[in-house]
Amino acid sequence: MLITPGPLLAKINSPDDLKKLDQEKLVQLCDELRHFIIDNVSIYGGHFGASLGVVELTVALHYVFNTPYDQLVWDVGHQAYGHKILTGRRNVFHTNRFYGGISGFPKRSESIYDAFGVGHSSTSVSAALGMAEASKYLKLDNKQHIAVIGDGALTGGIAFEGLNNAGVSNTNLLIILNDNCMSIDPNVGALKDYLTDITTSKAYNKLKDEVWNLLGKLSTFGKSAQEIVSKVENGIKSTLLSQSNLFESLNLRYFGPVDGHDVNHLVGVLNDLKEIKGPKILHCVTVKGKGYGPAEKGNATTWHAPGTFDKITGEIHKKVHDTPQPPKYQDVFGHTLVELAKANDKIMGITPAMPSGSSMNIMMKEMPDRAFDVGIAEQHAVTFSAGLATQGLIPFCNIYSSFMQRAYDQVVHDVCIQNLPVNFCLDRAGFAGADGPTHHGAYDIAYLRCLPNIIVSSPMNEAELRNLMYTASLPRSKQAFAIRYPRGQGVMPNWKTPFEEVKIGTGRKIRDGKDLAILTIGHIGNYAVTVCENLAKQGLEVAHYDLRFVKPLDEALLHEVFTSFKKIVTVEDGCIQGGFGSAVLEFMADHQYQAEVKRLGIPDRVVEHGEQLELHNECGFGPEGIQQAVLHMLEHVSTAAG
Amino acid sequence: MLITPGPLLAKINSPDDLKKLDQEKLVQLCDELRHFIIDNVSIYGGHFGASLGVVELTVALHYVFNTPYDQLVWDVGHQAYGHKILTGRRNVFHTNRFYGGISGFPKRSESIYDAFGVGHSSTSVSAALGMAEASKYLKLDNKQHIAVIGDGALTGGIAFEGLNNAGVSNTNLLIILNDNCMSIDPNVGALKDYLTDITTSKAYNKLKDEVWNLLGKLSTFGKSAQEIVSKVENGIKSTLLSQSNLFESLNLRYFGPVDGHDVNHLVGVLNDLKEIKGPKILHCVTVKGKGYGPAEKGNATTWHAPGTFDKITGEIHKKVHDTPQPPKYQDVFGHTLVELAKANDKIMGITPAMPSGSSMNIMMKEMPDRAFDVGIAEQHAVTFSAGLATQGLIPFCNIYSSFMQRAYDQVVHDVCIQNLPVNFCLDRAGFAGADGPTHHGAYDIAYLRCLPNIIVSSPMNEAELRNLMYTASLPRSKQAFAIRYPRGQGVMPNWKTPFEEVKIGTGRKIRDGKDLAILTIGHIGNYAVTVCENLAKQGLEVAHYDLRFVKPLDEALLHEVFTSFKKIVTVEDGCIQGGFGSAVLEFMADHQYQAEVKRLGIPDRVVEHGEQLELHNECGFGPEGIQQAVLHMLEHVSTAAG
Repeated sequence: MLITPGPLLAKINSPDDLKKLDQEKLVQLCDELRHFIIDNVSIYGGHFGASLGVVELTVALHYVFNTPYDQLVWDVGHQAYGHKILTGRRNVFHTNRFYGGISGFPKRSESIYDAFGVGHSSTSVSAALGMAEASKYLKLDNKQHIAVIGDGALTGGIAFEGLNNAGVSNTNLLIILNDNCMSIDPNVGALKDYLTDITTSKAYNKLKDEVWNLLGKLSTFGKSAQEIVSKVENGIKSTLLSQSNLFESLNLRYFGPVDGHDVNHLVGVLNDLKEIKGPKILHCVTVKGKGYGPAEKGNATTWHAPGTFDKITGEIHKKVHDTPQPPKYQDVFGHTLVELAKANDKIMGITPAMPSGSSMNIMMKEMPDRAFDVGIAEQHAVTFSAGLATQGLIPFCNIYSSFMQRAYDQVVHDVCIQNLPVNFCLDRAGFAGADGPTHHGAYDIAYLRCLPNIIVSSPMNEAELRNLMYTASLPRSKQAFAIRYPRGQGVMPNWKTPFEEVKIGTGRKIRDGKDLAILTIGHIGNYAVTVCENLAKQGLEVAHYDLRFVKPLDEALLHEVFTSFKKIVTVEDGCIQGGFGSAVLEFMADHQYQAEVKRLGIPDRVVEHGEQLELHNECGFGPEGIQQAVLHMLEHVSTAAG
Repeated sequence: MLITPGPLLAKINSPDDLKKLDQEKLVQLCDELRHFIIDNVSIYGGHFGASLGVVELTVALHYVFNTPYDQLVWDVGHQAYGHKILTGRRNVFHTNRFYGGISGFPKRSESIYDAFGVGHSSTSVSAALGMAEASKYLKLDNKQHIAVIGDGALTGGIAFEGLNNAGVSNTNLLIILNDNCMSIDPNVGALKDYLTDITTSKAYNKLKDEVWNLLGKLSTFGKSAQEIVSKVENGIKSTLLSQSNLFESLNLRYFGPVDGHDVNHLVGVLNDLKEIKGPKILHCVTVKGKGYGPAEKGNATTWHAPGTFDKITGEIHKKVHDTPQPPKYQDVFGHTLVELAKANDKIMGITPAMPSGSSMNIMMKEMPDRAFDVGIAEQHAVTFSAGLATQGLIPFCNIYSSFMQRAYDQVVHDVCIQNLPVNFCLDRAGFAGADGPTHHGAYDIAYLRCLPNIIVSSPMNEAELRNLMYTASLPRSKQAFAIRYPRGQGVMPNWKTPFEEVKIGTGRKIRDGKDLAILTIGHIGNYAVTVCENLAKQGLEVAHYDLRFVKPLDEALLHEVFTSFKKIVTVEDGCIQGGFGSAVLEFMADHQYQAEVKRLGIPDRVVEHGEQLELHNECGFGPEGIQQAVLHMLEHVSTAAG
């Protein structure tokens, strides 16, 4: 069912159409845009609260600025639904986040209005500054460069690096701070407290309202906005604006805070700011989920990406099952960590701003003094964990696989080179699903196994995850320990198995065979179980080994494999260059075995979004793909023999 | 020749000995420590200016704090020579940075006084905060945690992430901002301007002196330091300290600036701060090279690590050669970039705070509007470069290989996934030499070649570096292009060869052969040239191929190799897990070739510091090691055949 847009929205196929509207129609347009988003997300799912919060800002930006000539960069990008709908993608918006459909994030290859591809947070200032410096060099003095960044994203280190550099540039850079005190989970840290202070200071707000009213009026009379702003600014700076010195001290002219839901006011402010040269920041206060009661009043984390829901009642649809379902790996992690921590008072939990996504929130609730949300700050999370480890504690630092890329140097420099016993739980390893390429955990096996002093493992099911976590919690004096697992369900409805230590570097034989051996790592091994069963029905005896550790490899098991088999298929939900399969090839070369080895995994290209199974099939390592690879290799033999 | 320490220093074998000194002796001790450093570095080389700048701070810290119980973390760590000398390493200090000697950086395995290993910048706040949270949890309320961080290091994003988290912690964290307006090169960015403003404000400085005098006096009378500081602070905060709001707004109590060369004053201040609970920052103004005239007056970048020099005249020793020497790869990069940029006005240069080390300073001087030093901010440097590329410019972003680890997510997320044509020149690839494991560029081949949309190359000599840079500068619409090269000299005294385009993904046959083929990547291939010549004298015909590209591999060349040879040695100055040799194994497996392949490269452990050749030999891929590997493989045949 396609959603019917309101009458104004129905005519807007590009920002040019938007600019033709009288300004007085903008409130109605915002209303229509908001309802179009609510209607779509309630039926098709997707991110929700963030886009509702910036409806007015989105309309105002495209109304005032000359996109796509002016460069508009959305930080993170899950707030850009309104932007997508206004820039020619309204009619395909129902395909958002579905396999083959449009992306849930801005993406350069999708639209000229998407100035910079995003997904991970905090990159917008750097990207927009690069663009602005380019325009300055190219003498495009009228070109504007806008970064829209949330208060949560501002805590990421690269954002600060960008601000520090922006402050000494002389470019047309406008940073819009979208302050809603939230990222996915409530924002944490000193910066948030500071912004709240500014925003809630009554005296300050009264004055700033007067300032902006004055500004608005004078602008109408045609005076140079820059001159006025400068005058007004100087007036208040010496008194109340001392609070804004965080940004002023970085040499960014600070404006605001303004109400991010007053579209007409925003249009006025943005028109004024457009005339002001140099780097500047507009502090814009918004409400996540604005305009949809259940989201405004309810839990913002829940409404970040609620799935489908009943628009009228606000009831979020939940799948009902007749039989007990396997839990999500995330939940197994969260509950298991608490279970372990109750028995071992040295265990600590760390998450960089993903308490609900990772289920670290369970420990944060039960043991608030032992679980830390350190903000969108993966680098800090890892080095902080290393600091904990130096004092004899046992940190479990949970970071999404693709976000761990951001802490790579800290893993190398602060953990592995120092040989510290830090535990990393890498959530969302393999394909992330609907979030797409920016969130796929595709490279972690390759980028971790090349490092010294680290154990790299992946569980095939819930019991293995629990046992690996238990093993990682046992006293050891050195070595990092990484445990990677995918987003979503495992395979064991009765997952709460007793803990068993896993000997480091040991795999398991899942099934005997003689024609060929499949070697797998992690959850994807469950596909191989099915494949082996299917093939057995065809009379093919295919062995299956779950290696469990990419590093160290189970050399005894591999000697058994290479002694017994001349045909081997490796399967991993990671990149095939340098990954698990390559580790097997290295073993083979080092021990001078000869065998035919086919590696299945993520190919050497960007794989787009879709459901995990869809992507596994596309890449040839879904159940069907594995089976084909095995059959092809076996036929290949018989053909060769015949 | 061992340096004789002064009489006070001679008796100090640990901070315990230091604490026994009367405070009035500290000035003399500082003088002796300073001269011990000058004497040592002038003869044995090493980092220089940074350690001289913190002599007084080092003495005061160990005099006041209870190290190693109290945790002292030096950011970056090349300023920690005084710390090493005072903590039991005076008698081995002449081995500093030599193969088998002590490390040029703090290192946990070297001393219990080295609370956290460092080398890369900006990690100290996160590490010390982790330690402080651990102590809080362990109820060690009297334990202190000190991070000493430079103003340059403070621009790194992880430092800001740490500050943001520290501000909401309630821990015994003391951050000492060692402000000398320098990192290796002069510090850049808005933060530096801000700190300079504070430091040079006369009115402010006068007041702060009074405050500290008052504080000192009152403390002596036994009043609670905390109460007094609080009172005094509130008094000045509302007036002049508004400038300090950058830190105050992050909820860190700000003290200073204080003169970092007045050891007695520092002792007083640190004693007072020790009594103040909660996170706090002391702004300490120092002079790099303090106490050694030529370094104080001369170019601070030159005196960062001058090599050996004449202590009396300040003349830096330079090697004199009878014949023309090959240039450093660094210089070839710097001059070639300018040469290319003169012919192509789209070329831009970017360095994160390494203008002199990378030779980007040549372009910065000749074309200041086209070359950017963005501060110690590798993440920002990469995303900024991506921003430039979106506007049609051709960025050459030069980052040391090991520092590129810090921008890994930006390479993946902002460059490769978007398929943007950004050029990366990875300096210091392979072993960094005396800087040791934190600076070795050991993992870049493995962590880059697993990514899509990137070309990974390495030149074997100066002409190849020039040609690869030239090729990277030619118009292309997509793909990142990485060129990795080592620290130090190439092999071509006449290096300024005419530019030739290199076809992407093509290697070169250097030498024909029939017994075995050596495949190399990069400068290390020159060892193979020597080895092949030596072996030819023994009647062994060993072929040599320089692959030049790790990605894409030259498949035609590899088909030739695997069709012609059954014995292959691969050589790379990178990790052997997942590296170049593994890429060759993948090719072999994918095309079902069978051959004996021995991979030589950096083994799966932390390799310490030393000269490059020493480390190559240690790891078995110096000329001797390569030759042994070849002979072993050839003998192995004949034995097997016999």
